[in-house]
Amino acid sequence: MTETGSRIVADVGGTNGRFGLAHFVDGQEQPVIDSVKVFSCNEFAGLGEMLGAYRDELNGSAPKIAKLAIAGPTTATKGRMTNLGWDISADDIRNYHGLDQVLLLNDFGALARSCPYLKEGQDFVTLKDGEADPAAPISVMGPGTGFGVAMLVPDQDRYITCSTEGGFMAFAPASRLEHDLTEYLRAELGYVCVEHFLCGEGIARIYRFLVDYGGGGDRNLTPADITRRAAEGHAPACERAVQLFLSIVGGTAGDIALAHGAKGGVYLGGGILPKIADMIPESDLLKRFVSKGAQSSYVDTIPVKLITAKYAALVGAAVA
Amino acid sequence: MTETGSRIVADVGGTNGRFGLAHFVDGQEQPVIDSVKVFSCNEFAGLGEMLGAYRDELNGSAPKIAKLAIAGPTTATKGRMTNLGWDISADDIRNYHGLDQVLLLNDFGALARSCPYLKEGQDFVTLKDGEADPAAPISVMGPGTGFGVAMLVPDQDRYITCSTEGGFMAFAPASRLEHDLTEYLRAELGYVCVEHFLCGEGIARIYRFLVDYGGGGDRNLTPADITRRAAEGHAPACERAVQLFLSIVGGTAGDIALAHGAKGGVYLGGGILPKIADMIPESDLLKRFVSKGAQSSYVDTIPVKLITAKYAALVGAAVA
Repeated sequence: MTETGSRIVADVGGTNGRFGLAHFVDGQEQPVIDSVKVFSCNEFAGLGEMLGAYRDELNGSAPKIAKLAIAGPTTATKGRMTNLGWDISADDIRNYHGLDQVLLLNDFGALARSCPYLKEGQDFVTLKDGEADPAAPISVMGPGTGFGVAMLVPDQDRYITCSTEGGFMAFAPASRLEHDLTEYLRAELGYVCVEHFLCGEGIARIYRFLVDYGGGGDRNLTPADITRRAAEGHAPACERAVQLFLSIVGGTAGDIALAHGAKGGVYLGGGILPKIADMIPESDLLKRFVSKGAQSSYVDTIPVKLITAKYAALVGAAVA
Repeated sequence: MTETGSRIVADVGGTNGRFGLAHFVDGQEQPVIDSVKVFSCNEFAGLGEMLGAYRDELNGSAPKIAKLAIAGPTTATKGRMTNLGWDISADDIRNYHGLDQVLLLNDFGALARSCPYLKEGQDFVTLKDGEADPAAPISVMGPGTGFGVAMLVPDQDRYITCSTEGGFMAFAPASRLEHDLTEYLRAELGYVCVEHFLCGEGIARIYRFLVDYGGGGDRNLTPADITRRAAEGHAPACERAVQLFLSIVGGTAGDIALAHGAKGGVYLGGGILPKIADMIPESDLLKRFVSKGAQSSYVDTIPVKLITAKYAALVGAAVA
């Protein structure tokens, strides 16, 4: 086992930053990730400082290349973490830490990039079978601090990764309840997009709406409280909120699959869905995914997978 | 001027089929299209028969290669024209007409493929300036018999074309009026998608809704009547219908640009918009396009162009 190159990789969301080392081993396509460390974003003033904390952990033996995936729009050298208000310069980070190379990429772009390497059972579970067309795009999306969306477009023997801002698409309510939910938020925010519901705070928004709508309950639960109580059972308001959240995930995933022509498959990722995976089978997620009128048969051919691997985006960052 | 190859090209929508000859001339990237002939789809039982009528026009001097773009999902050898109910086999057409090659492609895929060849002023007009990122995807979309959506993804010195079914994305109403419009249609159709409004029949649906909503007027106008009367003025109900239609075009174009990460630009095409181009500047199309909450600045960097060339998809089919 000869190591042919190592690098620092990171996947920095709005809440946590996951750092690790990626090692490329001769004859193996998939990099090995180790030395993973998770930091809370709110304990740092910027990405360079987080990287410094990780390099400190490594006691001076850090590789000179860093590939950093962040939750926000990026170019290779500039980025902005929308939810934290961080403006990021790859050059500044490289100079400050004396590195050879710092590459910025979008977190869902990195997650998308990892998909060809993921193994069923170990890294993802199949929520819905289908016939993946290897020549068609793959959609990758999921709720976390925000709602990330990316595409993989096959080009002969490789993939092109496209990061998008699909989470900011206008929200399309599918029922009277969802219409009222939308109006509840429109009064406060004006424009209502899918990310407003498909993120941690979105679960709390849906929950508070259902409490106010007549469901009753304690208005002051955190997203983590709500998903935990829903998973434990005996908390009808929390369960209803999670069910509505999962239904909206399904409808949105179907819309994005249509917009991408994602006959190559849909991968759902992000921090929230693996925690409530047990509630997916009894939810409307897949029903909403395939309920697309005249094109229901089109989306019905698309396989849907749930990424359960915690550090998949680190693999994607490593191979980017 | 040496001809290095000619082929039959076609762009068959739900209403008309445009056929032509594409000639590749030495030293010129863009093929020359001539001998264009337009047929009404409803006079034919299938695509092979339409091709036969065009070959008859050519009096036996037809090239042996045909590249046929159709309004519906395709593989290279199979296609389905959703709105006409035609199932299409490239092999059957090739055998029947004794051709060397028949390639099927999606009509908006072909239109997308033409975009790098289009010239400002001659083939398109710029509706909104921006800074096109040459490394990012380009979105191409537009209303005709249906609402077509495609993507061009740059890969170094070329583009990969992705056809999509974005027209079937759930419709996201942006106002009380649009909510009521949606419910008006949901009662009849169940699932309501953007194509239900963004097509010829969609203009008539919007118009009839506005008549019933209290605007008054003759319920029995055709889409062509409505757009013509709106363009001529002195027909407030028709003008309102076209304005609402254009507003929905803008909102949908913004959503698709977000879903595609289309920092490379948005091209609007299809049969309807060039006919009502004069009404676009006074409409909400661009305002809705950029009204995307926290990502308004993202869409605001994207240039928006209106394809006015009638046979652009024939150019795209030729180079596919």
